Amino acid sequence: MKLAIDAMGMDKGSQIVVDAVKRFIKENDYELYVYGNETELEGLKSVERVHVLHCTQVMEMTDGALAVRRKKDSSMVRAIDDVNNGVADGIVSAGSTGALLSASTLILKTIDGIDRPALLGTLPAKNGRTVDFLDMGASSENTSDHLVQFAKMGRALAKYVKNIESPKIGLLNNGSEDKKGDLLRVETFKKLKEIEEFNFIGNVEGRDILSGEVDVVVTDGFSGNLVLKTIEGTGAFVMSTLKEKLMSSFTSKIGALLLKPALSSLKNTLDYKQYGGAILAGLNKPVVKAHGSSNAEAFYFALKQLEKAVANDVVAKIKRDLV
Amino acid sequence: MKLAIDAMGMDKGSQIVVDAVKRFIKENDYELYVYGNETELEGLKSVERVHVLHCTQVMEMTDGALAVRRKKDSSMVRAIDDVNNGVADGIVSAGSTGALLSASTLILKTIDGIDRPALLGTLPAKNGRTVDFLDMGASSENTSDHLVQFAKMGRALAKYVKNIESPKIGLLNNGSEDKKGDLLRVETFKKLKEIEEFNFIGNVEGRDILSGEVDVVVTDGFSGNLVLKTIEGTGAFVMSTLKEKLMSSFTSKIGALLLKPALSSLKNTLDYKQYGGAILAGLNKPVVKAHGSSNAEAFYFALKQLEKAVANDVVAKIKRDLV
Repeated sequence: MKLAIDAMGMDKGSQIVVDAVKRFIKENDYELYVYGNETELEGLKSVERVHVLHCTQVMEMTDGALAVRRKKDSSMVRAIDDVNNGVADGIVSAGSTGALLSASTLILKTIDGIDRPALLGTLPAKNGRTVDFLDMGASSENTSDHLVQFAKMGRALAKYVKNIESPKIGLLNNGSEDKKGDLLRVETFKKLKEIEEFNFIGNVEGRDILSGEVDVVVTDGFSGNLVLKTIEGTGAFVMSTLKEKLMSSFTSKIGALLLKPALSSLKNTLDYKQYGGAILAGLNKPVVKAHGSSNAEAFYFALKQLEKAVANDVVAKIKRDLV
Repeated sequence: MKLAIDAMGMDKGSQIVVDAVKRFIKENDYELYVYGNETELEGLKSVERVHVLHCTQVMEMTDGALAVRRKKDSSMVRAIDDVNNGVADGIVSAGSTGALLSASTLILKTIDGIDRPALLGTLPAKNGRTVDFLDMGASSENTSDHLVQFAKMGRALAKYVKNIESPKIGLLNNGSEDKKGDLLRVETFKKLKEIEEFNFIGNVEGRDILSGEVDVVVTDGFSGNLVLKTIEGTGAFVMSTLKEKLMSSFTSKIGALLLKPALSSLKNTLDYKQYGGAILAGLNKPVVKAHGSSNAEAFYFALKQLEKAVANDVVAKIKRDLV
């Protein structure tokens, strides 16, 4: 397996990528192609099976679609180009979502039958389960055909990456009854209902996403982005309130000490970083978007996620299931 | 003060309303008008200043707009009628949101300058603050003019109920930059920016809602509903995971015992019931929607919320601020 890594998108610099790559490469015999400023990537130069490719440009967080043609020697464009040319089988990048979306759509192209890619994230849910959620914000406006395509991709990924035979698919809506929602939801509901192979469980609400009762939740990119960040914000709010209460008295501080393992296990369960980045699904090659704020562990998990996508040949399987 | 109460919308029956009314009436000298099945409300008959008005019909949870004209003797329609006729100053109902919205819009009418009502909820936020969030789902599709009206109402309520001199208003969007979002957001952003009296802080993301950094968050009813239920669902998920971890070992169980007061204080902070129901803002009289799943305490807090709205004469103040 050969993986491409855009090392230049991290909020806190490329050392995080260096550390993650070192950990990852020890566990396998893959070839890793790391694109970025060679000075910053010095630490990888003597690592076996790691190839540092110096790039003179950097895709900035403010860069969008237009920058793709301008920044041909950016680590992001170079890495995607090499995936397209077969040098590597897939790519991880923590760079600007807009630029990554544009560059990979332009260079790798969407799969036949998919109009636009979707960001798919795997979130922790009740009873130790996880849920695949898409689109988390690749688009800001979608049609019902897009949403049906998202459902197909989500289903394929749940089937082939998580080995769920017949994933339960839900449409995120403002009520669970059949005819709920705006025109987009009503149309999408009808279309999803008609696809025989689908285990479509109907409309699900915001409170059902993490219930563990649904495997794939489909929504438009605008709502998906609001909802994803609301989950993050609410989790952070509850944890910070919990911390405050734990520090509020002498007795509670003692209790908190005894609970250290339990609380750190809670923190782990809620730690979205552990679940890797987001898969930019619908392209002809696997693309993983890591958080710009990732630490070395989070970036390592994003690499693991790309590894899984390549190992399971998910692109070919999505294609097959689309027919 | 005279308050109308629709007693027939509770998931678990009217006894909850009976208990809440008994607690509430002890604290003041108001007249309460309680509409519903008199047999179920037997417990209120001998309570001073409580008037039970027998109704032969019940608005069901599946009832929507059409039922309003058919069920003229339902507790909901009767109560709203009496508010309209001046028998009472405002109403609390836990009945079907759709029916309550239709009935109150039809009978009480929206304020001049407001095209449609919005559901406004007050949510707990960081640092002991709260945030007013609207529309939580009165509409399923909105225009930018609606969103501007929501901002005006949210601002007035934050000003006059919470005494915040210049409430910080945020537009919920898929990014914090100025030109983010779909057409609706871009249009709304422009219009909000132009209103001089507004302390408009720009776009806010899902993760900012509970940050304590914003007083009023405005969004369309569809997104608002998704986001609100996501907050509830994520809170429930974190709390259930916490519980599971606390019970996972002997040491953690001891720790949990020591933490009992801290944990119940956490539960209290997160308990949305304590923050009352939602205000159906934009009508000529105060209307509070309580949760159908409320217990007696939650319904009591919904009554407190109506009391505040009436005492502060919020409808007149919203009207004044709209000019």
